[in-house]
Amino acid sequence: MKKLVIFGSIGIDDIKTPFGRQKNVLGGSAIYASICASYFASNFSIALVSAVGEDFPEKYFQTLKKKNIDISNLTKNGKTFRWQGEYKYDMNEAQTIKTCLNCLEAFNPNISEQHKNSEYVFLANNDPDLQLKVLKQFTLPKVVLIDTMNYWIDKKYTSLVKVINKSNILLLNEQEARQLYKTPNLIKAGHLALQMGPEFVIIKKGEHGSLLFSHRGFFSAPAYPLEDLVDPTGAGDSFAGSLIGYLAKTSDASESNIRRAIIYGSSIASFCTEDFSINKLTNISFKDIQERYNIFNKIREF
Amino acid sequence: MKKLVIFGSIGIDDIKTPFGRQKNVLGGSAIYASICASYFASNFSIALVSAVGEDFPEKYFQTLKKKNIDISNLTKNGKTFRWQGEYKYDMNEAQTIKTCLNCLEAFNPNISEQHKNSEYVFLANNDPDLQLKVLKQFTLPKVVLIDTMNYWIDKKYTSLVKVINKSNILLLNEQEARQLYKTPNLIKAGHLALQMGPEFVIIKKGEHGSLLFSHRGFFSAPAYPLEDLVDPTGAGDSFAGSLIGYLAKTSDASESNIRRAIIYGSSIASFCTEDFSINKLTNISFKDIQERYNIFNKIREF
Repeated sequence: MKKLVIFGSIGIDDIKTPFGRQKNVLGGSAIYASICASYFASNFSIALVSAVGEDFPEKYFQTLKKKNIDISNLTKNGKTFRWQGEYKYDMNEAQTIKTCLNCLEAFNPNISEQHKNSEYVFLANNDPDLQLKVLKQFTLPKVVLIDTMNYWIDKKYTSLVKVINKSNILLLNEQEARQLYKTPNLIKAGHLALQMGPEFVIIKKGEHGSLLFSHRGFFSAPAYPLEDLVDPTGAGDSFAGSLIGYLAKTSDASESNIRRAIIYGSSIASFCTEDFSINKLTNISFKDIQERYNIFNKIREF
Repeated sequence: MKKLVIFGSIGIDDIKTPFGRQKNVLGGSAIYASICASYFASNFSIALVSAVGEDFPEKYFQTLKKKNIDISNLTKNGKTFRWQGEYKYDMNEAQTIKTCLNCLEAFNPNISEQHKNSEYVFLANNDPDLQLKVLKQFTLPKVVLIDTMNYWIDKKYTSLVKVINKSNILLLNEQEARQLYKTPNLIKAGHLALQMGPEFVIIKKGEHGSLLFSHRGFFSAPAYPLEDLVDPTGAGDSFAGSLIGYLAKTSDASESNIRRAIIYGSSIASFCTEDFSINKLTNISFKDIQERYNIFNKIREF
């Protein structure tokens, strides 16, 4: 069976948006990405590489087990990572109120023998040195998807460039792309990113959709027309998890298939933002996802 | 022959962008819109309603005549409207350095008898009271396209609502839509705009493309992937002029045809931004426009 490994965070979040506040809810990039990838996991397995504390609630392990997500690569020690964030009126960017790294602080990720031959790897936002360390443990990955954030562009530029070079697909958001390539023009930024080594570069633009760059083509994906955004936390990781999940399921990392993966990713990410934490994500069926995918087809026809 | 009337400004511009400065160049909404509409004018006529000064250079009249644009509705008196603007690094929004309304200050637009039965009318950004005054002179317009700007939302809200109610297609940019409907969510803003009376609402998002709203459908148009933006002045009016020009040519204001008109508008507006003033717009052929239209087809396929 094909394998997908997701390296990222597991956390307990406290989130405030104009639509309310939720404390002690499940969060973290690895959670969002793995739950979303699981919608496609009929012919591949999903394993998480992350750390949780001794205080991690049993009910959340059950959530993962229900989705057949392998947690044998989880380290358990100390306290679980906690993040407190707030979104203002325009819901554009989270303002971090408090971060307690806890067990993630000295986390030394090791991939178990049985997962070293995974074909599909998603390295969620993390210290690029740690991303490199994880990546080196895989013997022959087919598709490596990596994400990052503004903090690492500032603090660890050289290591970040190294990990970008080793990726097949690079994910950036609008601000990160502009910052990393020192240009306000996203088309220029996308082409500069390709020169760093990845075969594909995706720039995520939130409510404006996303852009896919490759050496042979360009794709502009619309956003799902959503009126009621409740909590954007995890949307980017939902997009990434769905994307690599769809690629793993179809064993096809061609440009045309990545276009479809982006539309699935956008469909699922739109559900993510309609409720806090993973509430909506664990209450949809593949039929719901396919319906949104079909709407994407209609809204871009001319 | 079918008729299109464009009511807007004619000006002499002084524009500075990170790519240079050009003084005393032809500008104004009516100029951009009419030149772009002329690409479709094989079966309809285009007339401008505007004012110029006694100082308006003869060579610029020649530019309009070459494009078969009827200037019999132009008032000539005093000095021509002048605008001085500057774009910073991100090219997002013009900063007005100086505006001299001159002959536009007390302009009292009157439509000649032969143009009162025009089927297609574009009212470019202007005082909504003036837009209403012009609109009342048409006996039975089929398609009324209107544009506005943030200034009128603040200063003449009641009149603006009246003219929006009388339009078939309303054009807003992102900021105007958010300001007018007091929401950060553009999807919500688009639906609120429809409630004011127009059949169609288009929200222009610059580098992020545009959105079309109607009571029956929604369309998300990508932007043309442009790396080298030289001067964005006139892009919105180029879009509008191309849009109504295409509708006039095809005598079809259905939603599916407006989608195509938006793509033509986006193609032509992308050329507009590649040079100062109308320099590029007067140096392209319909074949060039059709090539970009076809690229739009490819970049949104999945």
